[in-house]
Amino acid sequence: MALKLPFLQVDVFTSSPFKGNPVAVVNCMGIDESLVSDQQLQAIANWTNLSETTFLFKATTDRCDYKLRIFTPTMELPFAGHPTIGSCKAFLQFTGQKNAKSLMQECQLGIVSLTISDEGKISFKAERADVEEIPQDAIDEYRKSLQIDCLAAPKLLQVGPAWVVYLAADAESCYNANPDFAQMAATNTRYGHSGIILAGKKPGSSQDYEMRAFAPTDCVLEDPVCGSGSIALIRYLQDLHRFSETTNVSITQGGRLKRQGQIFCQIKANGDGKFSYISEGNAIIVIEGSINI
Amino acid sequence: MALKLPFLQVDVFTSSPFKGNPVAVVNCMGIDESLVSDQQLQAIANWTNLSETTFLFKATTDRCDYKLRIFTPTMELPFAGHPTIGSCKAFLQFTGQKNAKSLMQECQLGIVSLTISDEGKISFKAERADVEEIPQDAIDEYRKSLQIDCLAAPKLLQVGPAWVVYLAADAESCYNANPDFAQMAATNTRYGHSGIILAGKKPGSSQDYEMRAFAPTDCVLEDPVCGSGSIALIRYLQDLHRFSETTNVSITQGGRLKRQGQIFCQIKANGDGKFSYISEGNAIIVIEGSINI
Repeated sequence: MALKLPFLQVDVFTSSPFKGNPVAVVNCMGIDESLVSDQQLQAIANWTNLSETTFLFKATTDRCDYKLRIFTPTMELPFAGHPTIGSCKAFLQFTGQKNAKSLMQECQLGIVSLTISDEGKISFKAERADVEEIPQDAIDEYRKSLQIDCLAAPKLLQVGPAWVVYLAADAESCYNANPDFAQMAATNTRYGHSGIILAGKKPGSSQDYEMRAFAPTDCVLEDPVCGSGSIALIRYLQDLHRFSETTNVSITQGGRLKRQGQIFCQIKANGDGKFSYISEGNAIIVIEGSINI
Repeated sequence: MALKLPFLQVDVFTSSPFKGNPVAVVNCMGIDESLVSDQQLQAIANWTNLSETTFLFKATTDRCDYKLRIFTPTMELPFAGHPTIGSCKAFLQFTGQKNAKSLMQECQLGIVSLTISDEGKISFKAERADVEEIPQDAIDEYRKSLQIDCLAAPKLLQVGPAWVVYLAADAESCYNANPDFAQMAATNTRYGHSGIILAGKKPGSSQDYEMRAFAPTDCVLEDPVCGSGSIALIRYLQDLHRFSETTNVSITQGGRLKRQGQIFCQIKANGDGKFSYISEGNAIIVIEGSINI
């Protein structure tokens, strides 16, 4: 059956169009989920050619505002960062909500808590951010493929994707790095790592970082602006520095791809000795209309 | 200055949505071309992440119906096949024309003649299709990277892109080929070739082919359905078989990428011993709306 559904393409982690990371969002809240097959959703995401295409459905629980399904061109994801922020922006637009301050998103990973700031920035709290050690052989191989030294031992961050966080000497070394992607992909595959989050601190700043996200095994050599990568980085920084108080981390990303992404992160002290990891950004609607599926 | 322009995303060489090759088309016919910079158009094409994004402008000559500018995520192209067919479909939709049978498209390569069939299929006539020889060393390297034999000497086809046409034993060998993309990319780069058009004849058919298009140096490992590739293939076939009369060639492409592209080609005898090379396909509008630039 041919269906015409509301469609938005949102630019995330930017307030200037074409400078962030796009996500295509299809509004399926007006139809029953059984009307579209998994194969159909996958075919749409394969065709948009964006890193992620999402589908908003009616929530299946009263606790949540909507249910989100997230697809890359080749598979469905339990969760993803920039698609969550972009889809929340789309939900607000589709439903005409102007004053919502918090929303609950149902997705395969579980229920994700979203907050909308007075200026319209959208943030999500990470459901999972676990730190694991990496074998020395893998570290040595990553050093060879990145061709720059690391400031501290790289770790594996389980945040949905399994990102290796690799800290360069400074923001400039991060920005200028020219990785050997073939070599990096081989190491990623051998160890089951999703890719590399390379970051470097900006001179004179407290916690301002330049970041880049490489995923050469996934056909995406470099992701323009990466929400899950920002969670991986701040969780890594907390592991490294053991901040005792709430700490803000400001991240820029995408310059080498002619983007100007900005991610506002927070390592939030919960008061009980534990911490939450929050990623926030702007999102703007670039394409608006409908899609014939 | 913020502008809201009409936008369509069209699926080309298919009549089923998500089974062809998409192109994003921005209608700039209502504005002066000086209002948008080359940098802005390039940034939009970089952001859509499609193989091509096109911009329709008012023609600069009375002979033409519109002027088309075609961008990949990294550069402007003088001409491209599936974007031409998709943009023609978009032009008809934007202008509400239902009965046009022929149009003239102005683009960097020159003026391209377009025809619309009674069933709505759109065709273009190749402006350029020149056959060149390839060094034996390059042929040997391509045989290694494709891991299948060729039925006849591969040639270089200058059709805008410089495609190497490589004829497999049959359609099945073409479909099943698993090229070594790294090796192919190295050879493409060394000889300045854009990529490989692999094709194989269907058993029992007169001139029905399965086709695949590989461009591993351009970040697109495999193009789903390729208009310029179809021109390269039929020009190659004419060089090989020296048909004396008008010959139709039907091409399927994209199966390995879960697409079902169909290209209807014609080697047209002009009566003076010369031939024209024509590529025809369906196009359907999938996304319709506006873009904020």
